[in-house]
Amino acid sequence: MGTLRSLRCISCGTEYDPAKLDYTCPACGPRRGTLEVLYDEATLRHTVTRDSFAATGRASMWRYEALLPIDDVRHVQPLRVGWTPLYAFPTLADEFGLAGLYVKDDGQNPTASYKDRASSLVVIKAQEKRRPIVTCASTGNAASSLAGFSAAAGLQAVIFVPQRAPEAKVAQLLVYGAKVFSVRGSYDDAYDLAAEAADAFGWYNRSAAMNPYLVEGKKTGAFELAEQLNWQPPDVVFVGVGDGSVVSGLCKGFEEFARLGLIERIPRVIGVQAEGSSPIASAFSAFHGGRVEYDDVDAHSVADSICVGKPRDVVKAVTYVARNGGSFVTVKDDEILDAILALARSTGVFAEPAGAASYAGLRKMARTATLEGKTAAVVVTGSGLKDVASARQRVGAPIVIDPTIKEIERHL
Amino acid sequence: MGTLRSLRCISCGTEYDPAKLDYTCPACGPRRGTLEVLYDEATLRHTVTRDSFAATGRASMWRYEALLPIDDVRHVQPLRVGWTPLYAFPTLADEFGLAGLYVKDDGQNPTASYKDRASSLVVIKAQEKRRPIVTCASTGNAASSLAGFSAAAGLQAVIFVPQRAPEAKVAQLLVYGAKVFSVRGSYDDAYDLAAEAADAFGWYNRSAAMNPYLVEGKKTGAFELAEQLNWQPPDVVFVGVGDGSVVSGLCKGFEEFARLGLIERIPRVIGVQAEGSSPIASAFSAFHGGRVEYDDVDAHSVADSICVGKPRDVVKAVTYVARNGGSFVTVKDDEILDAILALARSTGVFAEPAGAASYAGLRKMARTATLEGKTAAVVVTGSGLKDVASARQRVGAPIVIDPTIKEIERHL
Repeated sequence: MGTLRSLRCISCGTEYDPAKLDYTCPACGPRRGTLEVLYDEATLRHTVTRDSFAATGRASMWRYEALLPIDDVRHVQPLRVGWTPLYAFPTLADEFGLAGLYVKDDGQNPTASYKDRASSLVVIKAQEKRRPIVTCASTGNAASSLAGFSAAAGLQAVIFVPQRAPEAKVAQLLVYGAKVFSVRGSYDDAYDLAAEAADAFGWYNRSAAMNPYLVEGKKTGAFELAEQLNWQPPDVVFVGVGDGSVVSGLCKGFEEFARLGLIERIPRVIGVQAEGSSPIASAFSAFHGGRVEYDDVDAHSVADSICVGKPRDVVKAVTYVARNGGSFVTVKDDEILDAILALARSTGVFAEPAGAASYAGLRKMARTATLEGKTAAVVVTGSGLKDVASARQRVGAPIVIDPTIKEIERHL
Repeated sequence: MGTLRSLRCISCGTEYDPAKLDYTCPACGPRRGTLEVLYDEATLRHTVTRDSFAATGRASMWRYEALLPIDDVRHVQPLRVGWTPLYAFPTLADEFGLAGLYVKDDGQNPTASYKDRASSLVVIKAQEKRRPIVTCASTGNAASSLAGFSAAAGLQAVIFVPQRAPEAKVAQLLVYGAKVFSVRGSYDDAYDLAAEAADAFGWYNRSAAMNPYLVEGKKTGAFELAEQLNWQPPDVVFVGVGDGSVVSGLCKGFEEFARLGLIERIPRVIGVQAEGSSPIASAFSAFHGGRVEYDDVDAHSVADSICVGKPRDVVKAVTYVARNGGSFVTVKDDEILDAILALARSTGVFAEPAGAASYAGLRKMARTATLEGKTAAVVVTGSGLKDVASARQRVGAPIVIDPTIKEIERHL
């Protein structure tokens, strides 16, 4: 891909040569200095059309190779990542007073989460950079995703998880052959340790917001929302927010498609945070242009994948969402658990708590001016099978009976 | 679909009007009398071509609507079932002395198992037959699949599980809003009660091998193996076997495609059973044409989805596999658990034990005359996230550390 141009600091705007910088702006530091990946869009405007993606014949995010920063498509693993189903639920839309309601099920990715979009790309960057060991800190999904794609690519993954990571996610890492360190401490402790270890040992770091290419993988969800709706993206897109990278990716994807003339309108993106873990929502409320200010919090939420007190992509998330007229909304843990059941029972899509947070946000904002008569999409970022224990809190018990028809009749 | 012709008893050959019989041949009884769904193939030969499936524009099993027994495609749920990825692993093929090795990942279905192919179809039959309540006995994939598709279709699912059913699997059913009866007794007690209740209350029964349309959904995996390999299906196809319906579906799919002139050669299908649960393999060994004889066993295996001592589709499974020159192979539980890790680490595909049984079978038969120089496909029938506990038995625990570089160094 010859159109990758530079990496630009989201805060100071300095542009860097991608061959010379791996992670964040040295001047602005790790959180303020997250980098944006820029392309030669003047060239792209001549080469990319609405038809060019389908013409690749790829039913995966790699249909967007022309807009992704890789040198050699031969490094792409066969695993089908992206091009996840987008479901329309017109009856449900009616109930919410919406003109249309779509659910994008990113639980249908190789390791069952949205994070596969980023991992599949980062593993390729590691190969291009000749870094045989990749690392990351993660509450779960990013880690299992990196472990899976590393296994497929023949790379070694070293993963740092906080001790509270759900069992299913940790087991997944070990099955994929990753070396897994369970860190006594929080996600933030694990995050700092992964960065330190990457420096010390020369490992390639995939931790959230550290690596500029993550958002590039994540932007493909926006590309798909546009292409799957025949280039008429929804008015509003809901997505759960933890570190802020997925929401940033969606926003950047829509912006790029608009600048390339592929869509005429950029959706408002609504970031949904858990009440007990909402530092980006707070930063957004305080933001009125200029410098993004933020405070870290002591986060707690049932939605482990978005339970982040020290969000790493807060600057991008606030900046991008403000630019498309979107906003942030917070939901209670109870509302998230309710949303898991409501979504599963009305659509058949079983989401993990963080994946259902988007739907909780939509339910909360239904019948407001932002939504009335609009089309809305909800991004489900992970499968419910990733965290059955949380869903279990909300369902009752089965009815215990002797094997007789009479017993059944008694309970009908 | 106007080409559905009749339901024919696999044992006595009597044909029945599909409008007049729901389940099994009254003369031969529930197990010997499982029914085959027959079509007007003379008509189909004129209407169905290799191109006609892609021309539907559907990237799901519903691209094969012309060969499926439904009346009205409007009942099809939006959930993307089937058209699961088929991955090629040429390097791995070399290691096994194969000309080609393909992995079909049916964990990438809406409820993460192959069973979705059957449930999505049976839910439509229930709607056509105006049966608003569907039922089945099962503790695992069939139940969660039926619960998920019933939720999507707005039907009520009533599920019967034996009391020892794992709490987490039961929770998944409850999330989807199924009514769950925990039966004091065995799986067989639950199975019989479901059948009795279906009769008593007019519910539509999806229990294994009871419903003739299950195999119709399951045959679409074979259709995809042919179409995704450009109408040159593999020489050999491996699949795990419990009740015998999935393996029967694959065989029937290849046979139908061959009779319609869409493929020139029918693959040998190899059914893989766990050593502690191999009544169909035993029946196959004893089979030399004529009547299929079988003995039930007291089954035990780590691969719960294929742990079936009283297989309900044994007659079809033995008959069909014999017809295509296939065979059965048994594998130890240890080999199944090893296969989970081997598959995940070399391909990135994380399978549940029953899903990895197919790969265990291939590993066992590698370098035999059946496989040497051949192309082989392995069907992964369920996601590893369905049964994390089993995989965990083989992988140990993460390394618990304090967040310091020194601690990492100690463990490298």
